[in-house]
Amino acid sequence: MDINKNFANLKESYLFSEIARKVREFGAARPDVGIIRLGIGDVTLPLAPVVVDALQKAAAEMGEAATFRGYGEEQGYLFAREAVAGYYAQKGAAIGADEVFIGDGAKSDIGNLPDIFGVDNEVLIPDPVYPAYVDANIMAGRRLRYMDGNWENGFLPMPDGRPTDLIYLCSPNNPTGAVYSREQLGAWVDYANDCGAVILFDAAYEIFVGGEDLPTSIFQIPGADKCAIEFGTLSKTAGFTGTRFSYVVMSKNLERGGFNLHKLWMRRQSTKFNGVPYIVQRGGAAVFTDEGLAQIDKNIAYYKENASILGKTLADLGISYIGGENAPYLWLKCPNNMPSWDFFDYLLTNTGIVGTPGAGFGANGEGYFRLSAFGSRENVIRACELLRDKINISMT
Amino acid sequence: MDINKNFANLKESYLFSEIARKVREFGAARPDVGIIRLGIGDVTLPLAPVVVDALQKAAAEMGEAATFRGYGEEQGYLFAREAVAGYYAQKGAAIGADEVFIGDGAKSDIGNLPDIFGVDNEVLIPDPVYPAYVDANIMAGRRLRYMDGNWENGFLPMPDGRPTDLIYLCSPNNPTGAVYSREQLGAWVDYANDCGAVILFDAAYEIFVGGEDLPTSIFQIPGADKCAIEFGTLSKTAGFTGTRFSYVVMSKNLERGGFNLHKLWMRRQSTKFNGVPYIVQRGGAAVFTDEGLAQIDKNIAYYKENASILGKTLADLGISYIGGENAPYLWLKCPNNMPSWDFFDYLLTNTGIVGTPGAGFGANGEGYFRLSAFGSRENVIRACELLRDKINISMT
Repeated sequence: MDINKNFANLKESYLFSEIARKVREFGAARPDVGIIRLGIGDVTLPLAPVVVDALQKAAAEMGEAATFRGYGEEQGYLFAREAVAGYYAQKGAAIGADEVFIGDGAKSDIGNLPDIFGVDNEVLIPDPVYPAYVDANIMAGRRLRYMDGNWENGFLPMPDGRPTDLIYLCSPNNPTGAVYSREQLGAWVDYANDCGAVILFDAAYEIFVGGEDLPTSIFQIPGADKCAIEFGTLSKTAGFTGTRFSYVVMSKNLERGGFNLHKLWMRRQSTKFNGVPYIVQRGGAAVFTDEGLAQIDKNIAYYKENASILGKTLADLGISYIGGENAPYLWLKCPNNMPSWDFFDYLLTNTGIVGTPGAGFGANGEGYFRLSAFGSRENVIRACELLRDKINISMT
Repeated sequence: MDINKNFANLKESYLFSEIARKVREFGAARPDVGIIRLGIGDVTLPLAPVVVDALQKAAAEMGEAATFRGYGEEQGYLFAREAVAGYYAQKGAAIGADEVFIGDGAKSDIGNLPDIFGVDNEVLIPDPVYPAYVDANIMAGRRLRYMDGNWENGFLPMPDGRPTDLIYLCSPNNPTGAVYSREQLGAWVDYANDCGAVILFDAAYEIFVGGEDLPTSIFQIPGADKCAIEFGTLSKTAGFTGTRFSYVVMSKNLERGGFNLHKLWMRRQSTKFNGVPYIVQRGGAAVFTDEGLAQIDKNIAYYKENASILGKTLADLGISYIGGENAPYLWLKCPNNMPSWDFFDYLLTNTGIVGTPGAGFGANGEGYFRLSAFGSRENVIRACELLRDKINISMT
C-alpha cells in the first residue's frame, strides 16, 4: 500500500487551528476577559434579504414535484453562470457564461484546479500568502518557489525574469491587503505569456477595491485570456462563508502543452464533482441582481468603515501598516520588533484581542500581524479602545 | 509546463453525455414521440416536507445577525455528524460522530479520497461498475485491475487471492442492482485485512435493501473498521441529487503504511474543502429524524414499486434480468443478444424509452442494459405498455 507521502511534508499544525487552541486555553484560564476576534477572515453580517428570499423560494421549489430539480450540470446552472458573466461585463471584462464554472468555494477550486497540471511543474508563490496554495501543491508533490513580498515592494512581488510554470497571485492580497495596479498586473500577464506559465489569480477580495483605478479582475488586463485562470467567491463579497458559492473563470481557448485547459477542468469537475446545490445557486445568482448588489454594498461599506477605524487607531499609535483601504485586512508591523507569535500572545493576554500572526502566512510574514475588519462595529470600537489604553501605555 | 497527461488516457465521451446527445438528436428528429427517461439514475420525487422546512428555517437563520453562521468545520457540523452516526447505530454499526465527514456528494468524496493514497497502487475495480471510480483513478495514474462480474457470479465478483491495494465495492450495485450477502462481504473484509488493502465501499443505494438479511453497511461486518472506508449519500435516499449531502465514514484508528488515514483525509479536506452549506447540513440532518425517515420511506416504497412493475413486465416478456428488488436498477440481458448500444438505439427509436447501455459500465456490461426505477409511476406504466406492445411483437 503506497500512501501519499507528500502529506508528510505538510507542516503539522494549520495556522487557524493553532490560534483556536491558544484562544481556547486563554478563555479557560481567564474567563473574565472578553475575547474580540479580529483573527480568522470570517464575516459577521447576515445574508442579504434578497439572498434569503431566493434560498427560501428555491427550497420551496424543491418540495414540489413540478419544480423539483435533480442533478444539474457540473459546471453550474446557466442562470448562475450568466449572473457571474453579467458581473464581469459590469467590470468591463468580456466573459462568456460558458467560461464560468460554479464551485463550492475558492478553497476547493484553488485546491482542485491543479489536478489538471502535472506534478513536474514549478509553482511560484508569494510569501506571505494564504496558506492553502502552498499546502495543496505540497500534497501533489510540486516544486515550490517563493517570491519575496516585503515592506520595500509593498508586499507586491513582481516577476524576476526566471521562467516558471504556475503563478499564484492574490489581489487584494490576503493577508497584506495590498493591491496590484493595472500596470503591475500587466507585467505579470506579459511575463506569463512570454514564458508559457499560467496565472492562478485569486480575486476573493475584489469587492473591497474602491475609488482608485485598481483592477478587480485579471481579465481587465489585455492578454490575460491567454494565460490566466481567476478564482472568485461570494464568501467575503456576500457573507457566503457558511453558504458556499464560488466561481472559476477561464477562456474556452486557454491552452498549454497541446491541451485545452477549459476542457480538462470540465472533465475533472464532471468526474469528481456534481455541482453546487440548486438552492445555493439561486441564492448566489440573487447577489448579482441590482437589488442584491445594492444590499451587499451596504455590508461592504460597513466592513470598510471598520477597517478605517482600525487604521486610524494604528496610525495614532504610530504603528506602521498597509492595507485596509481596498481590502478587509490591515497588515501591521509588530511594535518593538516583536516576533509575530509573541505579539499574538501579548495582544491576547493584555487585551483579549485575537489577530493573526504574520509568520503563519510565510517566512516573510515574521514580524507582521494581520487584523481583520470583519468584526462587528461594537467589537472594532472596543478593540480600538483597548489598543489605545493598553498597547500605547505598555509599549512606549 | 507539464500537463496532467493521465487525462489523455480517459475515454473521450462520458456515458451520460453520449446518451444525452442521442436523445437530443432523436427528440429533434421525432418530436411526435414522447421520451420516457429510465436512463440516468436521477430521482423525480420532491424533497420531503421535513427537509424543506429545515432548509427554509436555516435560510431564515442565515438572514439574522444573531443566528448567522460563517465558516463551519470542514468535516461538518456536529449536529449533522451525530445524525449520521445515529443512523448507523440503528443499523447496528457503532460509528462515532468523529468518524463521519460530511461531504457534498459521493462522486466528490469517491473522487477526492484517493488523494491520500500514493500513485503507485493497484486499484481493483468490478466490471461493470459506476464509471467514476475508473476515471478518478486514471486521472491520478494508478494501475487498474478489473474483476469480472458476470451472469454466472450474479455480477458479484469475489476475491481471487491475488494481493491488491485499493478495492472498490458497490452494494447494492450500480448498475446491476446485485447485493453482496453478509458472508460475501465478510470474505472481502478478511481478504483486505489479510493483504493490507483498503476497501472503498460505495453504499449509495443502501436504503433500497429490504426484507432479507442483507448488509446495508460494510461496518455491519466484523473487522471492517480495520480496512474499510464507506461512502454514503442522501442523493437517492432522500432525493438530494440537486441538494448535495454525502458522508464518508472511517474508523479513527484506520492505518496503513504508518499513516493514520482518518488524519490524512481530515487534512486533505481542511486544505481543499470548506464544508457543506449550513443550510444543506440542516436539511440533511432532518432526513435522519424519525419524521424524516418516515417521509422518505414512502418515496423509497414508490420507487421500489416502480421496480417491481418493470420487473414483472420483463419477466412476462421472457427477458432475463437481475436487480430491482433491493435496488432501484434492473439489469437485463438485451433481447436477441443485441449489443447494448444497438438495443439502446432500438428501444429509443421504437418506444422513446431511454435506458443505459451496459457497455457504458465496462466491457462486461456489453450485451446488458440498465433500467432505472426513479421515473414517475405514470412513465413507468407507460414504458411497460410500450415494452409489451412494441418489443414483444417485433422481437419474437
